[in-house]
Amino acid sequence: MTDTAELSADDVALATPFLATLVRLVRAEDSYGTWEGRSDASLLKDFILTKEQRREIPIIGDPDPDVLWRVEKFYAAIGLAVEAKAGKMASPMMKMSHEGFGRVILTTGRLVVLSKSLRDVHRWGHDDLTKLAEAGTKAVDEACEMIAKFPEVADW
Amino acid sequence: MTDTAELSADDVALATPFLATLVRLVRAEDSYGTWEGRSDASLLKDFILTKEQRREIPIIGDPDPDVLWRVEKFYAAIGLAVEAKAGKMASPMMKMSHEGFGRVILTTGRLVVLSKSLRDVHRWGHDDLTKLAEAGTKAVDEACEMIAKFPEVADW
Repeated sequence: MTDTAELSADDVALATPFLATLVRLVRAEDSYGTWEGRSDASLLKDFILTKEQRREIPIIGDPDPDVLWRVEKFYAAIGLAVEAKAGKMASPMMKMSHEGFGRVILTTGRLVVLSKSLRDVHRWGHDDLTKLAEAGTKAVDEACEMIAKFPEVADW
Repeated sequence: MTDTAELSADDVALATPFLATLVRLVRAEDSYGTWEGRSDASLLKDFILTKEQRREIPIIGDPDPDVLWRVEKFYAAIGLAVEAKAGKMASPMMKMSHEGFGRVILTTGRLVVLSKSLRDVHRWGHDDLTKLAEAGTKAVDEACEMIAKFPEVADW
């Protein structure tokens, strides 16, 4: 067995720029150092919701502040990762109804680099760290493509 | 005295497309017809805050739901007036802290047609109907200029 083969799928996911940024953002809110002993994977465990777990949550429900916090961190990490990749900050703006649907957009200058409708936010989560990394990385790529397509608007 | 000379400044302001739209929006929320007997000027009276009235309000304060409602209606009216003028809807998105500062943007397609920082929202209002009409009309014109400048992004 080589060293590479010993890397788990989670390790690979955690090494992506997107998840590294998300972990940094989450750790930045650890004012009292209570999470210092926790691994990155354990810090992100609430971002993961397997299909089985999702099935156990009622279809209709109000999102609690913790899940809204995670959704905000997810899009904030996308904004930071866009800055790292494209050299321009993307600021998120989220508008949620208390019933768990809404919209999030990321803007750079006068350009909307990402626009997503959100629904069933009380059941927000990704299947595993690999899917979480993929979803974030895809959004970062989309946003960077928009910036490359309309640089003048992004610089406005 | 001609007929024209009898028009007050308020009448002139109320005849602008922007204030006509704002009045329509406010009347649209009158589900029980309780405002039917009220004049347009009286419906908009809470959008007016004279310098003297503003001075009487503490500098620091939390915005109440009524003032937030008026700010939302003001920007929604801008969005509708943009549609009437440019043929494309502009959707407002407002993010306010409970302390009365925040940001409102209007987007058309992937274009941010208007972006405003808000502060001291608990003291939000305009000196008179003329100033209210001017502020709205100026924002509508700015938004339409952005659409004209970047039509491809507005259509995205």
